[in-house]
Amino acid sequence: MTPTITAFASSPDRGRGLARDMPVRWALEEVGQPYEVELVSFEAMKAPAHRARQPFGQIPTYQEGDLVLFESGAIVLHVAGRLPGLLPEEPAARARAIGWMFAALSTIEQAILYREIPTYTERDRPWFEARKPILDDQARRRLADLSDRLGRADWLDGAFSAGDLLMVQALRRLGSSRLLEERANLAAYVARGEARPAFRRAFAAQRAAFEAASAQRGGD
Amino acid sequence: MTPTITAFASSPDRGRGLARDMPVRWALEEVGQPYEVELVSFEAMKAPAHRARQPFGQIPTYQEGDLVLFESGAIVLHVAGRLPGLLPEEPAARARAIGWMFAALSTIEQAILYREIPTYTERDRPWFEARKPILDDQARRRLADLSDRLGRADWLDGAFSAGDLLMVQALRRLGSSRLLEERANLAAYVARGEARPAFRRAFAAQRAAFEAASAQRGGD
Repeated sequence: MTPTITAFASSPDRGRGLARDMPVRWALEEVGQPYEVELVSFEAMKAPAHRARQPFGQIPTYQEGDLVLFESGAIVLHVAGRLPGLLPEEPAARARAIGWMFAALSTIEQAILYREIPTYTERDRPWFEARKPILDDQARRRLADLSDRLGRADWLDGAFSAGDLLMVQALRRLGSSRLLEERANLAAYVARGEARPAFRRAFAAQRAAFEAASAQRGGD
Repeated sequence: MTPTITAFASSPDRGRGLARDMPVRWALEEVGQPYEVELVSFEAMKAPAHRARQPFGQIPTYQEGDLVLFESGAIVLHVAGRLPGLLPEEPAARARAIGWMFAALSTIEQAILYREIPTYTERDRPWFEARKPILDDQARRRLADLSDRLGRADWLDGAFSAGDLLMVQALRRLGSSRLLEERANLAAYVARGEARPAFRRAFAAQRAAFEAASAQRGGD
């Protein structure tokens, strides 16, 4: 059965692969699972029909027969459990890889979002600039710890896993920020993730969806 | 094999059950798994020996033979996979319950922490008071969505699950804040979680650890 995911009809990231359908697409590509995409407008996202499958009015969702899932981390874990390619078979290694999924979302992405959210919500406030170094330093501490753990390894714990997928995706939110450049091994780790064929297919698919929507609106 | 978890030797929450060993203790109690606790000082937490098991220098960790895990969400999921009591057997229901675990951490707790962290890091800044209503409103939006989804149900999706455990624990961070009181069904949901015998045993155990440490220091 081909699963269907939802994604932005017109992604606010303008096709940079930062919306939360990206890790889901990437996971599906890594395991070789074909999927359908239903594009959802901002209006439709907040309407009751979508909220029935996503209570917070967001994308992505994942539908596979009667199963409806939301939360990109949960969807990636579900996809990783269905087909090989994203989690080791050996139970202890598998538990540790799942641990990195939680670390990516709860520890690293949390610190990155904490720094990023004010750029959407408090950019016009008088304290916006003064807070930046505080937020940068908080994120830097987490990134330093992650950099120390990764060391010279290619991936966080043996072979590439769903933990690396979510971690690379979290770090990608830093974009061209100094914070990533300051940690050469993390920048190389992100580049390594982005070079994976599955990443590139997923990235191209979300970019194509954005460009089609943009062309339809007259190329804004 | 009895697992060993780590917890604060002297919890900064002063035994209110908000430190991250709490959801792990609660999960272990729900499935009836006895456990050992190793208390770790702030100094030891940041030292290389602890960082080898927890790269961010935090608690809790979980050790079971050769397996070492960190991230409370990952530990709760691992415990829930070992013994019945926290996840439904039926695969779709199980996937949805795991989905609520991610929603608790990535969506709800993220909004609650976003509002809470400045009370530790920016309390002395001139903008601290002015930002409060902004942060409250951001958290309120998530709580409204969660309240709408919970409705009159006891738990988020059928029987109590690891998703409810992490969600109740996330909401407990709101303490006596108005934000929880404004949503009567969420306040009742938290009370329902806190009334579970497993919660009470876990709470008593972490409180006893704090009180023993406090007595040792001369009852501060």
